[in-house]
Amino acid sequence: MSGEQELGITESKEHSPGEWYAEVVQKAGLADYAPMGGFIVTRPRGYAIWERIQDHLDGWFKDTGVTNAYFPMFIPESYLEREKDIVEGFDPEVAWVTHGGNEELEERLAVRPTSESIIAPFMADWTRSHRDLPMRLNQWCSVVRWEATETKPFFRTKEFLWQEGHTAHTDEEGAWDETMTRLEQYARLYEDVMALPPLKGRKPEHDKFPGAHTTTSIEALMPDGKSVQAATSHYLGTSFAEAFDITYADADEDENTAHTTSWGLSWRAMGALIMTHSDDQGLVLPPALAPDQVVVVPIWQEENKDEVIEYAADLAAELDEAGVRVELDDREHRNPGFKFNEHELNGIPLRVEIGPHEVEDEEATLAHRPDGEQETVDREGIAETVQEHLDTVHGKLYASAEETLEGEIREADSREEILGTIGQHGGYVKCGWCGDEDCEDPIKDAIAAEIVMVPLDRDEEPIHDACAICGEDAEETAYFAKSY
Amino acid sequence: MSGEQELGITESKEHSPGEWYAEVVQKAGLADYAPMGGFIVTRPRGYAIWERIQDHLDGWFKDTGVTNAYFPMFIPESYLEREKDIVEGFDPEVAWVTHGGNEELEERLAVRPTSESIIAPFMADWTRSHRDLPMRLNQWCSVVRWEATETKPFFRTKEFLWQEGHTAHTDEEGAWDETMTRLEQYARLYEDVMALPPLKGRKPEHDKFPGAHTTTSIEALMPDGKSVQAATSHYLGTSFAEAFDITYADADEDENTAHTTSWGLSWRAMGALIMTHSDDQGLVLPPALAPDQVVVVPIWQEENKDEVIEYAADLAAELDEAGVRVELDDREHRNPGFKFNEHELNGIPLRVEIGPHEVEDEEATLAHRPDGEQETVDREGIAETVQEHLDTVHGKLYASAEETLEGEIREADSREEILGTIGQHGGYVKCGWCGDEDCEDPIKDAIAAEIVMVPLDRDEEPIHDACAICGEDAEETAYFAKSY
Repeated sequence: MSGEQELGITESKEHSPGEWYAEVVQKAGLADYAPMGGFIVTRPRGYAIWERIQDHLDGWFKDTGVTNAYFPMFIPESYLEREKDIVEGFDPEVAWVTHGGNEELEERLAVRPTSESIIAPFMADWTRSHRDLPMRLNQWCSVVRWEATETKPFFRTKEFLWQEGHTAHTDEEGAWDETMTRLEQYARLYEDVMALPPLKGRKPEHDKFPGAHTTTSIEALMPDGKSVQAATSHYLGTSFAEAFDITYADADEDENTAHTTSWGLSWRAMGALIMTHSDDQGLVLPPALAPDQVVVVPIWQEENKDEVIEYAADLAAELDEAGVRVELDDREHRNPGFKFNEHELNGIPLRVEIGPHEVEDEEATLAHRPDGEQETVDREGIAETVQEHLDTVHGKLYASAEETLEGEIREADSREEILGTIGQHGGYVKCGWCGDEDCEDPIKDAIAAEIVMVPLDRDEEPIHDACAICGEDAEETAYFAKSY
Repeated sequence: MSGEQELGITESKEHSPGEWYAEVVQKAGLADYAPMGGFIVTRPRGYAIWERIQDHLDGWFKDTGVTNAYFPMFIPESYLEREKDIVEGFDPEVAWVTHGGNEELEERLAVRPTSESIIAPFMADWTRSHRDLPMRLNQWCSVVRWEATETKPFFRTKEFLWQEGHTAHTDEEGAWDETMTRLEQYARLYEDVMALPPLKGRKPEHDKFPGAHTTTSIEALMPDGKSVQAATSHYLGTSFAEAFDITYADADEDENTAHTTSWGLSWRAMGALIMTHSDDQGLVLPPALAPDQVVVVPIWQEENKDEVIEYAADLAAELDEAGVRVELDDREHRNPGFKFNEHELNGIPLRVEIGPHEVEDEEATLAHRPDGEQETVDREGIAETVQEHLDTVHGKLYASAEETLEGEIREADSREEILGTIGQHGGYVKCGWCGDEDCEDPIKDAIAAEIVMVPLDRDEEPIHDACAICGEDAEETAYFAKSY
């Protein structure tokens, strides 16, 4: 960032959301484009957000019995092909390693697109008795999927960072509880940490993870009216366990097949975060994820410089002591206006302004990102006051996202109404659905919207008696939306 | 682990160290061999050790100005080849990705063997003014080097986990300070966390990292008398900055070339840890890295079962409360002897035995791993007592490794003496050296020992006036050793 001309966001979130998003990501220093199409470089300010997401999730995983492990990044082609037993027409879009040094490999190796096929054989090896179960493994890593689409940092990249959890259980109940535990933890991350209320649901049969019994997901609404699949948690039934021979001896020494799950959250969560909260001034971050939560900006004239800076530095030190992530911006070569713009661009949730008046009155002026709301507060008890204001900022972001979401779920009871409503407003349209994939096709073909979820509870009555598309009996409620 | 017959280590550390090491790694549940030669699966008990190493180092890095980032795992061949400007005869032994999905790539991609060539161009982009420096980036990732050697978990694997730090500075002083800061942090990890005193030194000119001005390393002595390069920290001078155009405008707006460093520590540290401290009963871990630091084993008869287990559970809860990583082993289907063996195999540093006598006398019996030393202590103040004993265990491990190291540094002043001393004892031999690579060759050829380091201080007087090999004037002191 070498000059003021580069600081501002020039694109509009409302009118050119794609360009705006790309500009925020780059100018806030989150990521750059790599020389190879489809790859990005995650810069420190971006990676720090991912680290905080990891810290939260990883802590919750470990509190609920998960252990981390690390499996090879390469999977032999023959291993990957074992998924053909489970998945018809399996044709992985992967990066293939064919040479090591100057030698051609006897068997080519896939860079992992997901690790079921290399993890499952080891789970089979390690599972002998019911006492070895449940077995809960997770790894934080990157995976590669060779899909040819336009690069969108954190949303669509050939390599992406994620965690993938893989568990085995003695029975369906244990595996289903596991599936729901992880879904709830993902939803908690979105709500409590990212200030972004998601919907929880189940994928329709024809859109499940290949080989899964049930795919659950959380869906988040983006400001352009599209839905993002924000994390998934799969109950795999016994299909993977059968294909990879994950069996155990029960208390009577009888051999049984395990029930397995897998679940993952990728850095797409960061994309959803950035896109939802940010604005035409730049990045907006919830305090729980902001690398710096507070910036203290002293505003001095020559005659009061020392005392203003000292007062600001003391205040910053007190916040730091209290565990707030705080930066003191006492740079000499930048004026306050420049600093304000820069901190807004970088998404620091709370700015503390200290001028001669604040020093004289033993006060501090707080300004919220994103709405600029200001309040002058007592210097005494500042750490507690700042924490309250950070909570308020989180609450504002959450309330705004929640209000948007609530207004963007509409009902429809005909094909034309689905098309018209999504075409005009975006968002979600819920309707009765017969359960037949054929009834999704005309919506897909016309406006590229699809069924992004159905209710988690299979016994829930559909909202209408008839399928909105074919008019036959409705089996469940479908949520249509355009999707990332 | 399904039966008692599998529990014991059958190989001997003294007589078959290679087989013993492999057996400890597998039976203690640290790693398994992957289906592809050269790759391993890191199991939860192994990965937990790596996570603790990460936690320590990452905290120290961040305290000293380092920020984490993430660069692509692939490097275009043309980028990698830019290192040819720096390194003569550059021929990377890497894994090549040649196909994405069913398409052949226009340019093949190397799976990163190290990331200088993809990071440096971005550092160049991000560095404009002296205010952007120092720039300190680090990433935790895996890298792949396609070397055809026998697989040895954590020591020799084609894919390995590591961190790689890359920094840029305005001048030599800043870059050299950085190089030494990281070397000191690596040494601190070995000493304070791993209980393993290393040597600090510099690589001879002919064995530097390609393109580096100076390569420093820490070296750790293994029980078989071989040295392990335990971490490296390179001062790269301006060679990479020149090749990749990392320049900055100084305060006078003059353009200058930056000075850069890189530094890395891999999971080889885990290998050194396991090999040094473990014994014929299995794994031995220093308390700072042990996933479980303490196991509480209640030993009951039918008539006192409830009270013994309750007493043990209370004690474990108190330790847990105090922040000790503790496990209560109240399994019914295993007898105490089996449990003791299992916990010894798994390297739990401290065992707390609770029998009816301990309950009656309000005491607890502590047993140290590895030497089995026991002490019966008061129940009151148990958390503090346990912490003292954990410190004692660390101290014992450190003292033992230090004693071994001190006894294994010998002097020599002739070629025959070098060959004889290393041939007979292993360990390090230090001698005067003229500085010519040719004088290393006869030792290398005869017994595969090499100069693993020279003193950090370039001005240090050599221990002898003459080169032990050629008899010419000695320029410095060389440390010969066989090496991993």
